[in-house]
Amino acid sequence: MKSRILLPLAATVALLPTLGLAQDAEFASASETAFIFNTLLFLIGGFLVFWMAAGFAMLEAGLVRSKNVTTQLTKNIALFALAAIMYWLVGYNIMYPGDAWIIQGWFGTIGTKDIKTAIDAGGYSNASDFFFQLMFCATTASIVSGTLAERIKLWPFLIFTVVLTGFIYPIEASWQWGAGWLSEAGFSDFAGSTLVHAAGGFAALAGALILGPRIGKYKDGRVMPMQGSNLPLATLGTFILWLGWFGFNGGSQLALGSMIDADAVAQIFANTNMAAAGGAVAAMILTQILYKKIDLTMLLNGALAGLVSITAGPLDPTLFGALWIGAVGGVIVVFAVPFLDKLKIDDVVGAIPVHLIAGFWGTLVVPVYTEGTSFVTQIIGFASIGAFVFIVSAVVWMILKVTMGIRVSEEAEIAGLDVSELGMEAYPEFSKS
Amino acid sequence: MKSRILLPLAATVALLPTLGLAQDAEFASASETAFIFNTLLFLIGGFLVFWMAAGFAMLEAGLVRSKNVTTQLTKNIALFALAAIMYWLVGYNIMYPGDAWIIQGWFGTIGTKDIKTAIDAGGYSNASDFFFQLMFCATTASIVSGTLAERIKLWPFLIFTVVLTGFIYPIEASWQWGAGWLSEAGFSDFAGSTLVHAAGGFAALAGALILGPRIGKYKDGRVMPMQGSNLPLATLGTFILWLGWFGFNGGSQLALGSMIDADAVAQIFANTNMAAAGGAVAAMILTQILYKKIDLTMLLNGALAGLVSITAGPLDPTLFGALWIGAVGGVIVVFAVPFLDKLKIDDVVGAIPVHLIAGFWGTLVVPVYTEGTSFVTQIIGFASIGAFVFIVSAVVWMILKVTMGIRVSEEAEIAGLDVSELGMEAYPEFSKS
Amino acid sequence: MKSRILLPLAATVALLPTLGLAQDAEFASASETAFIFNTLLFLIGGFLVFWMAAGFAMLEAGLVRSKNVTTQLTKNIALFALAAIMYWLVGYNIMYPGDAWIIQGWFGTIGTKDIKTAIDAGGYSNASDFFFQLMFCATTASIVSGTLAERIKLWPFLIFTVVLTGFIYPIEASWQWGAGWLSEAGFSDFAGSTLVHAAGGFAALAGALILGPRIGKYKDGRVMPMQGSNLPLATLGTFILWLGWFGFNGGSQLALGSMIDADAVAQIFANTNMAAAGGAVAAMILTQILYKKIDLTMLLNGALAGLVSITAGPLDPTLFGALWIGAVGGVIVVFAVPFLDKLKIDDVVGAIPVHLIAGFWGTLVVPVYTEGTSFVTQIIGFASIGAFVFIVSAVVWMILKVTMGIRVSEEAEIAGLDVSELGMEAYPEFSKS
Repeated sequence: MKSRILLPLAATVALLPTLGLAQDAEFASASETAFIFNTLLFLIGGFLVFWMAAGFAMLEAGLVRSKNVTTQLTKNIALFALAAIMYWLVGYNIMYPGDAWIIQGWFGTIGTKDIKTAIDAGGYSNASDFFFQLMFCATTASIVSGTLAERIKLWPFLIFTVVLTGFIYPIEASWQWGAGWLSEAGFSDFAGSTLVHAAGGFAALAGALILGPRIGKYKDGRVMPMQGSNLPLATLGTFILWLGWFGFNGGSQLALGSMIDADAVAQIFANTNMAAAGGAVAAMILTQILYKKIDLTMLLNGALAGLVSITAGPLDPTLFGALWIGAVGGVIVVFAVPFLDKLKIDDVVGAIPVHLIAGFWGTLVVPVYTEGTSFVTQIIGFASIGAFVFIVSAVVWMILKVTMGIRVSEEAEIAGLDVSELGMEAYPEFSKS
Repeated sequence: MKSRILLPLAATVALLPTLGLAQDAEFASASETAFIFNTLLFLIGGFLVFWMAAGFAMLEAGLVRSKNVTTQLTKNIALFALAAIMYWLVGYNIMYPGDAWIIQGWFGTIGTKDIKTAIDAGGYSNASDFFFQLMFCATTASIVSGTLAERIKLWPFLIFTVVLTGFIYPIEASWQWGAGWLSEAGFSDFAGSTLVHAAGGFAALAGALILGPRIGKYKDGRVMPMQGSNLPLATLGTFILWLGWFGFNGGSQLALGSMIDADAVAQIFANTNMAAAGGAVAAMILTQILYKKIDLTMLLNGALAGLVSITAGPLDPTLFGALWIGAVGGVIVVFAVPFLDKLKIDDVVGAIPVHLIAGFWGTLVVPVYTEGTSFVTQIIGFASIGAFVFIVSAVVWMILKVTMGIRVSEEAEIAGLDVSELGMEAYPEFSKS
Repeated sequence: MKSRILLPLAATVALLPTLGLAQDAEFASASETAFIFNTLLFLIGGFLVFWMAAGFAMLEAGLVRSKNVTTQLTKNIALFALAAIMYWLVGYNIMYPGDAWIIQGWFGTIGTKDIKTAIDAGGYSNASDFFFQLMFCATTASIVSGTLAERIKLWPFLIFTVVLTGFIYPIEASWQWGAGWLSEAGFSDFAGSTLVHAAGGFAALAGALILGPRIGKYKDGRVMPMQGSNLPLATLGTFILWLGWFGFNGGSQLALGSMIDADAVAQIFANTNMAAAGGAVAAMILTQILYKKIDLTMLLNGALAGLVSITAGPLDPTLFGALWIGAVGGVIVVFAVPFLDKLKIDDVVGAIPVHLIAGFWGTLVVPVYTEGTSFVTQIIGFASIGAFVFIVSAVVWMILKVTMGIRVSEEAEIAGLDVSELGMEAYPEFSKS
């Protein structure tokens, strides 16, 4: 016997009297199996969605210019850490008021309290749910950071993240996933095309409008290209996100402990993959037609838009359904990116097209395959959450702008945020400048 | 209760009458457990093999020169997306004719039709099988892209991918995994040393012969080194592939729902890791002896060759068996890479030594540890698939060459495919040129 | 039916008489379920910890100067391969003497011998345990490579790795996890703050003292900054390590087959994440206060220190406990990095602060939340292992120094190890030089 097994077993046995369970608790009984499977789904789904934080970091680090890469990396890892803390401190409890303080206020355990009841209910570990839900909150914040790259001050961005992950996201997510009014109204958003992706996009949009475009981006009525400095990183980030999305959508089945749930998770994996493929191929073909050459960054964003598009309803479509839903997402991106530029909304990585606009599409299309949903309710849900997130975000951005300022100085922006804000270059030996 | 659980449960309950199951279907019964485990193995295995697509992308992006990196990235993500679509459109149904149209033609659901029967048979979700098998098809295509880098036109490559993933791979894979004639003849290829790796290698070899070497690669009887531009990326790619291979080989046990299967998957994981280690160390020591210094790219390819070598039979060898089988793979690579250069076959990333030649070795060695197999049958199987894939691929490449041309112009090749074909540099701020 | 299922089933059926099981072994019975879950935890945990090897490789490749990147990559992949072989050859059997030769000497199978007994004991596959434990051994070696970067000779480092992974780690780990004297004394180190992280740190410290600092690092009483060449790689590495740590700590529960274990694994995941967040935020705020700007490399190391800090006891703390334990780890790093520099101990990546010093902190703090442990015993355990690893490592380093030399020549160090030792640049097209 490995001695390592003694430690946790000892801990387990120590707990037994409290739990009212017999000594043989270390062997799974049939009635426990569903509990374990459900918990495992949250854990696997959770670590896959965690991995998406790395995907956003790489995608954005690859798409900004080298003089702003360190700042972008810092923002991405810092926002995740802040989200983890804020979601524990307030977010989770705001989002699930029905479970008032299921994580036991601030100083209690997250261990499942009444395990016997949990088993009988075919439940899951509270801690696994917290772990999984936290990742969605962090994802919402990750979406914002790309849009505002290359000219935002670091600390105001981080403060916005604190508000977004502690309050804005949990409140709007509670409307649906906390059994709130949207859920009762029949709104359907399986894994968060609206609740996560569009919400992040609206927060980013509010920021972009208040922050303004980068210096030199729009000059004499023309859009100046500002190329990403490292496309392998951007591609790696896209692959990471694609991988993580299996956890994002598949885990949102919220159960694996029955054969119907297992079959559902499998269908979701297959559909999610198909939608990404559809988005990628659509963007690829469309850029070839429009520009006579494939645009890799459009292809990457096309795949991501496909993923966002299927997220509101990844279970019910057929594979063909997932394909065309995702493909429309890819088409949306190819048209939305230049459209935003026409409006002089400077979105450095294309997060608004990918997450907000494709998120709208994904939310809207749900009733085509999912019974009991309606286009009107979908639009109401999207509009409600969009308006709430946009307005509150705009207010927060405005307050930050007035109080501490949100934009770096002109010289700092031209010199690059890495030198001016952080004093640390991302590639000190490579850059031309 | 989290409200998010209500959505899928509602959907589940709606399905129940169709399925002829009682209301309590959301709790796993003992008879469902195997179904869930088997499905879960396919899903975990599948996302790990998906991740290999990112591994190939990084490996190849790291091993080409910086002027061709964007193109290589584009090829890798596009080929995966195309494979996903083609395998659904035709491949899966060609490969498993016995299950004629199990995914319900083109517009039907992939959900498990008769769940009661599936449970009784200790089965798995059809969708999870489709998801898993698809990844093997895509892997075959990934292998091709590295060999032909730096001089092939993008669209002909993508068209070849369509044919490979929709027809060539499914047909030859069907001979074995579709219960075809090779399977009946006693051929043994557990996870695809021949069916996936050598097949990809043969398609690449046909392409390399017809495409010809890069300009300047072979000059005055000498081989000119053309160094990879980013070795951290290549190393990352190798680590990704190594990780993904646990899913590739472990998932190919095709079942996790019994203790024998779980034990088998575990042995496969351990052996797969050992073979990679053996290949890496063998290549490391050998390059030290031959060249008086370790060659990192050989070390990376040695690890990969070790992995390919164990893939045909990862379950039966002892750890020592996995070690020496993998080590021979590593040795093969060190000798095969310069040998190919002697033949003036220009394989940019070493995919033919790693996947075709080590794939042959892995297929050949199976009878040493696996009862009921024979060297003769192994050779017949390898030769049959090799001949089929090579000939059909050569025909397709020739048709593409004659009709649209497969090679970029001399100027384009010298300027780099990124500027000439795509108009987008991978590292616009770093390159010396 | 997929034909691929026939192969393993055939193999399975062939085994049945040996195993004394009925034909229906391919369907999970309730009594088998725990065995499968436990095995699955080891496999998932194992591949996540494997992934940490890639994390170390990327972190270190990003934090060294570009002229030493190829060497650092080579060391990282080579050390993992050597660890895999050495742990099989001797390490595993040294570490678990109670299971004398459970992997059947060198040429036997690792398959579970007596499966019936294993099931009755609610056990797990031996192969899965070997796979999982091996990864911890390799992690210990990964920690060493960063500290000694940029001036150590490649082969002496690899020889040290052989001794470390074959002997030093297994011996000290056996004291606790092999049911040895520390385990009997009541020492508590759940997943290895001391056994893995501090041990790696002590081996690195011994090496750093004997090897001496890099040329020019400490000049005229000042510390010269030697900036990492690629911060996106370093950030990616940190994200990879963070992800892998869920397997590192969660898998160390060593069982998933009961609801109590599943709940424990979930709590460990949540706490591990929280500690990393705490470490990151603490380092971020502290560097802002101390240096008036956030230091990304401190933030990354802060996250890692948070992870190391929670590793000795990730199950028992509340989320708030995990937060402050991790935060203290982050604070430690910010002060320990310049402190080591004051002592002229040149630790290129900060591995000693992160793994040794935060490892001490994590070990020390266990009794705050874990009953039955004492500060005295924790200190004794840490000191014993530290002394053993430090002294034996120092002896090995000294022998290597006297016999073959461990440091490259001055010219080689200035030119960079990649050109002088390996003749292969990591970024041949980018570097300024």
